[in-house]
Amino acid sequence: MKLQIAIDMVDAETALRMVKEIHDVIDIVEIGTPMIVREGMLAVRLIKANYPNVVVLADAKIMDGGYIESEDIFEAGADMVTVLAVADIATIQAVVNTARKHGKQAMADMICVSNVEKRARELDNIGLDYICIHTATDVQNTGKTPFDELAKIMKVLKNTKAAVAGGISIKTIPLIKKIGPEIVVAGGALTKAANLRAAVVEIEEAIKN
Amino acid sequence: MKLQIAIDMVDAETALRMVKEIHDVIDIVEIGTPMIVREGMLAVRLIKANYPNVVVLADAKIMDGGYIESEDIFEAGADMVTVLAVADIATIQAVVNTARKHGKQAMADMICVSNVEKRARELDNIGLDYICIHTATDVQNTGKTPFDELAKIMKVLKNTKAAVAGGISIKTIPLIKKIGPEIVVAGGALTKAANLRAAVVEIEEAIKN
Repeated sequence: MKLQIAIDMVDAETALRMVKEIHDVIDIVEIGTPMIVREGMLAVRLIKANYPNVVVLADAKIMDGGYIESEDIFEAGADMVTVLAVADIATIQAVVNTARKHGKQAMADMICVSNVEKRARELDNIGLDYICIHTATDVQNTGKTPFDELAKIMKVLKNTKAAVAGGISIKTIPLIKKIGPEIVVAGGALTKAANLRAAVVEIEEAIKN
Repeated sequence: MKLQIAIDMVDAETALRMVKEIHDVIDIVEIGTPMIVREGMLAVRLIKANYPNVVVLADAKIMDGGYIESEDIFEAGADMVTVLAVADIATIQAVVNTARKHGKQAMADMICVSNVEKRARELDNIGLDYICIHTATDVQNTGKTPFDELAKIMKVLKNTKAAVAGGISIKTIPLIKKIGPEIVVAGGALTKAANLRAAVVEIEEAIKN
């Protein structure tokens, strides 16, 4: 299992300082949607220029223009990009094809998909690297968690690896380990920690041991 | 009926030059998603700094983090923002509330909504300014057009005005006028024209006369 940190609420310079602290202990650095909306690909460029070996995911949540948007994102240096699972299959396929062309990776974000098993079946054979079950930030306060849906799609997926995101902390790692996705995404549990590096190492150790 | 130009495939400086040509004849300038992914809010800031009276829509296609994302976008100077109609209602409501707080406007983009009448009914009473029927760029080559769905939601909407986007040109204006949405969005038909200003004036005249 790999740990992905979602960096959302800071500017690109701050994100770069955070990566400096954790570049040798984190598996994947996600540049979150709010950062992209504010500063575009700036954080992706800065981090890849300074830490070329860090795997950077741009959480662009592509909904249309699959080719043009993912092309721009991979050219900026991102190693992985997200496309929304609610997008048309033509858009998702365009993102996958662009990832293949660049030797990079595509993840479909299942946020707000109503029937995740059905959509996972539809998306399992089109070349996606990951399908991510994701409880929206805006609905986490209803008590919804991503774990049941994660378990459901893992029974369905034959070709695509699973990822999980949405309110994940050190407390939920044991449950996630039992379900066994390839990637676990943590945001605030890491970025709001008093000691970022210690928080990352703690979850990495919980994942690996 | 108002004309919205979708500016997508250029950088912020080029977008500013385009706005210089048309600022007195266009109703709404859309900064498209691909521009936001590349450069964040740069084009919004540049255009509002130089043409404060031009109405700027940021096509951020918000899917989560409704408050934080729309807050950033309105603070950058945008007058209107898009949220995806497939997003959770909590996200859409957060975008609407943030628009109200700033005295600005929110548009829900119905791209990839399977039952547009049902969703239009659900979204008609939450304070949205516009609901936009939008045929994705990536599916326009299948021959799909937005006009039937536009006519359907206009029968449903009581509080929210309608907009339409997706492959619109001067040829489809007569049909759209019969259906009667508040906003018509044109992209390539304007931005790829040999004479941008002439193309905008031609559609504006077709709309108004």
